[in-house]
Amino acid sequence: MRQPVLSRNLLLSLAKKHGTPLYVYSAERILEKLTHLQGAFTLPLHVHYAMKANNFPPLLKLMQKQKIGVDVVSGGEIKRALECGFKGPQIIFSGVGKSVEEITLALNQKVFSLNVEGPQELERIGQIARRLKKPASVSFRLNPNVNPKTHPYITTGFRKNKFGMDRSFLPLLVKILKKYKREISLIGLDFHIGSQMTDIAPIEEALAKSIPIWKDLHGQGFPLTHFDIGGGIGISYEGQKTIDLKSYARRLEKHLKPLGCEVMCEPGRFLVGDAGVLLTEVEYIKKTPFKNFVIVNTGMHQLIRPALYQAYHEITPLKNTGRRKIKVDVVGPICESADYLAQNRMMTEVRQGEIICVHDAGAYGFVMASDYNLHAKPKEILI
Amino acid sequence: MRQPVLSRNLLLSLAKKHGTPLYVYSAERILEKLTHLQGAFTLPLHVHYAMKANNFPPLLKLMQKQKIGVDVVSGGEIKRALECGFKGPQIIFSGVGKSVEEITLALNQKVFSLNVEGPQELERIGQIARRLKKPASVSFRLNPNVNPKTHPYITTGFRKNKFGMDRSFLPLLVKILKKYKREISLIGLDFHIGSQMTDIAPIEEALAKSIPIWKDLHGQGFPLTHFDIGGGIGISYEGQKTIDLKSYARRLEKHLKPLGCEVMCEPGRFLVGDAGVLLTEVEYIKKTPFKNFVIVNTGMHQLIRPALYQAYHEITPLKNTGRRKIKVDVVGPICESADYLAQNRMMTEVRQGEIICVHDAGAYGFVMASDYNLHAKPKEILI
Repeated sequence: MRQPVLSRNLLLSLAKKHGTPLYVYSAERILEKLTHLQGAFTLPLHVHYAMKANNFPPLLKLMQKQKIGVDVVSGGEIKRALECGFKGPQIIFSGVGKSVEEITLALNQKVFSLNVEGPQELERIGQIARRLKKPASVSFRLNPNVNPKTHPYITTGFRKNKFGMDRSFLPLLVKILKKYKREISLIGLDFHIGSQMTDIAPIEEALAKSIPIWKDLHGQGFPLTHFDIGGGIGISYEGQKTIDLKSYARRLEKHLKPLGCEVMCEPGRFLVGDAGVLLTEVEYIKKTPFKNFVIVNTGMHQLIRPALYQAYHEITPLKNTGRRKIKVDVVGPICESADYLAQNRMMTEVRQGEIICVHDAGAYGFVMASDYNLHAKPKEILI
Repeated sequence: MRQPVLSRNLLLSLAKKHGTPLYVYSAERILEKLTHLQGAFTLPLHVHYAMKANNFPPLLKLMQKQKIGVDVVSGGEIKRALECGFKGPQIIFSGVGKSVEEITLALNQKVFSLNVEGPQELERIGQIARRLKKPASVSFRLNPNVNPKTHPYITTGFRKNKFGMDRSFLPLLVKILKKYKREISLIGLDFHIGSQMTDIAPIEEALAKSIPIWKDLHGQGFPLTHFDIGGGIGISYEGQKTIDLKSYARRLEKHLKPLGCEVMCEPGRFLVGDAGVLLTEVEYIKKTPFKNFVIVNTGMHQLIRPALYQAYHEITPLKNTGRRKIKVDVVGPICESADYLAQNRMMTEVRQGEIICVHDAGAYGFVMASDYNLHAKPKEILI
């Protein structure tokens, strides 16, 4: 049976003390993942944690203490990052829908870079920078049209996705850059082709396809200095093989070294995903002639990944009792059939009142929680 | 072009005054739907609004003034209903995961009925009622094993769903009822086979399959008085035909009249779904060689139905300019490809800065909103 990221006795005592549902994150595991990532590269690596994966303030403060930066996708995330000790120049601002207010905030805070997703955005940044008399550093987010073979909902670098720009955008972008040459500096390129990837090949392909654009812009006199290789490194939800970091670094550095650039990355799930668990209590066991239901006190309102992406999360009881395995659906209290954590799962038999552990819930868990059915939000804790 | 539920000029002025994204609900439309439903039945109909569809306090207060009841699915919903003027005896409490705290609250507030979903829940109600020395009125939620032919995620009365109980549960339920005969009164039966149904046949089938259970329990000496026919009547998101209320009432009353019972129902989406719109502003137009993207300032974090259920919402500009239609994806600012409101949709061409209207957003809109990516929640307004 899979062991939780923190000891079962500790988790049981936390559940007793704080009640359930409860998200628990392991600081030790997060730091281990960060060290592992940084150690894989021979080039200096600027890590920007993608806080959309988990924005719990104590966790952000932990990241901030490691002297890494943060990747944000909204004005709300900029504010949260600043509250947790990050400075503007440690922030890179991604996302396809940056509003006037958000860009204004970003420029006032002197963020390191805005990752530009389209010409209208670049124009808007130029206008705001001119009005504020503040310089703007930007990177272009490229869409390399690579299929990362992950869930369609978390594929972002394929041509049918809303993200990034291909080569056809360059003439217009260059024109806008020239129009705002006193306000805007183009500092680099960026791609991010998807999340939860378990194969290096698409990432390397995306990078290889981006190099000619880098050279083209260099040739046109733009002194690019930073290449942002995005995030997307998967974790092992189901025991599957994941990306070997040494190979990942070696294969990407082969392309990056000749550019003489600084390398940036934006890991989110990789750092926090398997560092978190969601503890929940069994409210009822319901056996019908067709199914065995384990009804727990959390569900799609607090962990929507199974409903939205048909995602797999390992679920185990915290007490190891040597009970048999039976086939169950683990479901929540929400009034719809989307509200499940596992379907037709062979799982150790559990009982009413027992605390069970949903593994790998550190990323895209609490941050996607809603007030649906007006259940109170779960607590979070960083150990 | 489809007309919004409120006048375009009014919606434009509201967007200007309150900003976007903005949910706007029409009280007039809600009351019209309620009158329509009540007028269809010849038997007295006890309407309990399923507040999980929309729990905006002014909207709940509007419902409360109509002297109807409310159907809740959590302790949080009980509290919200009480805050909005409902009294305990106007509340029925549904849901598969009722906790000890929630049942305690419900009994203390003397709710009209707890719709019981399983034997362990009935046992728990009995224990709590005995401890509190408070009587408990319950209905049994039946699972009639009927396929309502709606989206699998909102199918609830099929045998593989977690909801309700079939005939095989009766002996155990009766045993528990007898154990707690001083505490628990069985007042009726209840079914709810799904949401957004557009066909009467499955509902009639569910009712027909439930009548023998009613008679069986009557025969065993339980003086049932209330039959709750659930909700689930669909609305016309895509111009499709919906249920004719007169036929619906006539076909169900044919089965209900001989029972001599009071009839209850739990409409949610039917009352509020097409009474609401979501107003949003176009942040950017992005044309790639492969797609036209309309990037707006709302998305899956504020209206998750398209991402979660592949649901259709009509989207129109508020200004009628006679522009041509083009094929677009309407997407939000969230950093994943699930974040769309429409895909490959032929839609009137819109421009940056324009306000557009997402129709039929009154049900399962704001209530499912999250803080994902830390965007502020949209405002809501009842006109």
